Amino acid sequence: MKTDVLVIGGSAAGLVAAMTAKSNFPEKDVTIIRKEVKVMIPCGIPYIFGTIGTTDKNILPDAGLEKLGVNILIDEVLSVDTDAKTCKTKSGKDISYEKMIFGTGSLPFVPASIKGQELKNVYTVPKNKDYLDVIVEKMNDFKKVVVVGAGFIGVEFSDEFNKKGIDVTLVEVLPKIMGTAFDPEFSDIAEEDLKARGVKVITSTKVKEIKGDGAVSSVLLTNGTELEADAVILSIGYKPNTSLAKESGLELNEAGFIKVDRYLRTAVKDVYAAGDCAEKHDFATGKISKIMLASTACAEARVAAFNLYSLSTTNTFRGTIGIYSTCVGDKAYAVAGLTETVAKNENFEYVTSMFAGIDRHPGSLSDTSKQIVKLVVQKCSGVILGGAAYGGKSVGELINVIGFAIQSRMTLNDLLVAQIGTQPMLTASPAAYPLIKAADICKKQMRT
Amino acid sequence: MKTDVLVIGGSAAGLVAAMTAKSNFPEKDVTIIRKEVKVMIPCGIPYIFGTIGTTDKNILPDAGLEKLGVNILIDEVLSVDTDAKTCKTKSGKDISYEKMIFGTGSLPFVPASIKGQELKNVYTVPKNKDYLDVIVEKMNDFKKVVVVGAGFIGVEFSDEFNKKGIDVTLVEVLPKIMGTAFDPEFSDIAEEDLKARGVKVITSTKVKEIKGDGAVSSVLLTNGTELEADAVILSIGYKPNTSLAKESGLELNEAGFIKVDRYLRTAVKDVYAAGDCAEKHDFATGKISKIMLASTACAEARVAAFNLYSLSTTNTFRGTIGIYSTCVGDKAYAVAGLTETVAKNENFEYVTSMFAGIDRHPGSLSDTSKQIVKLVVQKCSGVILGGAAYGGKSVGELINVIGFAIQSRMTLNDLLVAQIGTQPMLTASPAAYPLIKAADICKKQMRT
Repeated sequence: MKTDVLVIGGSAAGLVAAMTAKSNFPEKDVTIIRKEVKVMIPCGIPYIFGTIGTTDKNILPDAGLEKLGVNILIDEVLSVDTDAKTCKTKSGKDISYEKMIFGTGSLPFVPASIKGQELKNVYTVPKNKDYLDVIVEKMNDFKKVVVVGAGFIGVEFSDEFNKKGIDVTLVEVLPKIMGTAFDPEFSDIAEEDLKARGVKVITSTKVKEIKGDGAVSSVLLTNGTELEADAVILSIGYKPNTSLAKESGLELNEAGFIKVDRYLRTAVKDVYAAGDCAEKHDFATGKISKIMLASTACAEARVAAFNLYSLSTTNTFRGTIGIYSTCVGDKAYAVAGLTETVAKNENFEYVTSMFAGIDRHPGSLSDTSKQIVKLVVQKCSGVILGGAAYGGKSVGELINVIGFAIQSRMTLNDLLVAQIGTQPMLTASPAAYPLIKAADICKKQMRT
Repeated sequence: MKTDVLVIGGSAAGLVAAMTAKSNFPEKDVTIIRKEVKVMIPCGIPYIFGTIGTTDKNILPDAGLEKLGVNILIDEVLSVDTDAKTCKTKSGKDISYEKMIFGTGSLPFVPASIKGQELKNVYTVPKNKDYLDVIVEKMNDFKKVVVVGAGFIGVEFSDEFNKKGIDVTLVEVLPKIMGTAFDPEFSDIAEEDLKARGVKVITSTKVKEIKGDGAVSSVLLTNGTELEADAVILSIGYKPNTSLAKESGLELNEAGFIKVDRYLRTAVKDVYAAGDCAEKHDFATGKISKIMLASTACAEARVAAFNLYSLSTTNTFRGTIGIYSTCVGDKAYAVAGLTETVAKNENFEYVTSMFAGIDRHPGSLSDTSKQIVKLVVQKCSGVILGGAAYGGKSVGELINVIGFAIQSRMTLNDLLVAQIGTQPMLTASPAAYPLIKAADICKKQMRT
């Protein structure tokens, strides 16, 4: 068979690449090829285990693809001949293409050093419905679960299992939970919130061995503690899924991601890559970044699709900012751009400030939450390098306000004269809006 | 007595001007002079009547002023001699100043043509605690209230009275509620939501006469309808409170606002003005604007204070954007910058689009709300002129994302490659984030 645009992978990057391609080049035949009959909403996976209750309510809908007329092929690409511009699939198809986009995503990563990972009831978190269905089904029998790795997924899994009444212990090798994403102040708040809800948290500690006879029965930590466990979730990290890309002759960078330029083109003619499998550079430093985020993937996918048939210098990818948000109960934590920790390590001369206010006004309104905003600002220029926020659920959009400030290279002075919309039931007061108050504090520090 | 910086008025503009001045020039003596012992949070006033229940829980706190060491003087300025740089107060004080900031705000406006406005139980909405306390006290006896004027305050009052079980009819002269702020699509949604909650809405209709013997008993409309009423709220509009400014020799513009430059300086040396009393120019058109918003006031107050002792070209006011948000029940409506109606009237060549999605992912999450985003984009340049949003409470911050896009003069292409943060429990999906999807639709229209 023959198609104009062949997208490999059906998760966030693949979906958005295919939709954007078809939407912008409606005369082209666009095909998405994916292994899964039903695709999981990737970020929704932790919520299957508590709030949502089933994988069936966490399906990435095909309606958008179908409405546009994108072909969906449930199959697997086994090899690509980028000279002949054809590929072979598991079901025996030969597909020729005009343009190809790799959106092959990422796979769970577990260090070989963890013994006992092959035991029954030890799980990773792949984006695979059948695999997750097994955990959902067996979860009813679990009384004690150990979650290993306190990144966003580990924290979300812990909170969700806890909601189901399961005894959860979260184990993290770093001194702080979500410690690579957040500065310590925010990690500390999240840890307190998580503990207050009943999750046990052990940091600065490695897993030495997962023990059991057939099925897991306990987890032995390097500090000698042995935790009883009916199940273990290994949410340690992900690695780019790039074996097909490598075999197809695409160049990978030292971290294993497919090398791409600012148009998301690989070095091979007419082959693009986007999402977790594609190379990223940090927005502020230009360094290679290992960030894997569905939202970053979607932005990259749009750039790749826009530039398929002719390049647009105004539709390029300008570096990865990394805008993360998550929640524990009804409290939200979010970060955009550089943390203070990274700014310091990278040798920026910076000022930083933190303001704690509330997210309604007056504070007597019943759904008022504390809201904290931190800013990291380059000292000489005043350019906003990064920010973080804690508070009620609207923090999920507040971090995008900060994200837009970073992307637009707004300065502290721009922030200080910025107009914001405020309303008693919806936001902080205009006189004490934490983002602006944090900027105020930074400005004073710029003078010293 | 003598002070360095004298701020007249204690509401949003005065508070922020005084705090910013003292914070940035700590060696200066800063005094705020105001009539009110206790200042109302201006935007919180409608909520006194339902959600909050008392004016005592809607007080703008003095703690920030006190902590910084700003002097608070409860008094009234009767006259200013800008040559001698002194003023006289009601209590008999002569105060000399180095710099003066007018933050005298606005007063309710009622057209003389409305007969019967002097009747008992007919109220306007001044920012005056004693006046509002009377309404709160008498409210328990009100069974039927007519609210005249369906701007933000009229809509908020209606929803709040309705929460208390009062029979409310909202009367508006324009065809749509909040019709000067929103395009019709959003006004229509708000009207539906308000009606579904039990508020009666009558549009395209004027009040002919408020009738009653001593106290109001009914409201006669120009269409002949007579509405029974125990009380009437006149939320028709506000006019700048600039009589003192005028008497002091400051120049007013044709709409009655104190003329100021981009540093918020009046033409009189060392006299500044900020907030509802100060002249505004629209961000996009440069035309004189009549917008009165506490958030705009705070931004202006910061600019005035920063520029008191030396000018900073990076801390200027760049034109009023007007970022409004409000809610009916738990649904929020917000707008930033130009509506389509204004863009059309002002003769911009524009494209516009609207995308309706949801604000969580998957949509099976229990607090998921519909979310609609509309964009108005200049056709040739792609510059974002305005946007509007409807949805759950996080719309209060989402509109600030759009507001920052406008202030940074982001283009459609900037939006299309923008990175956003998303999370299942907090935001829309990255693949169907309504702001980006609306931008997608606009882009296709740019080509035609």
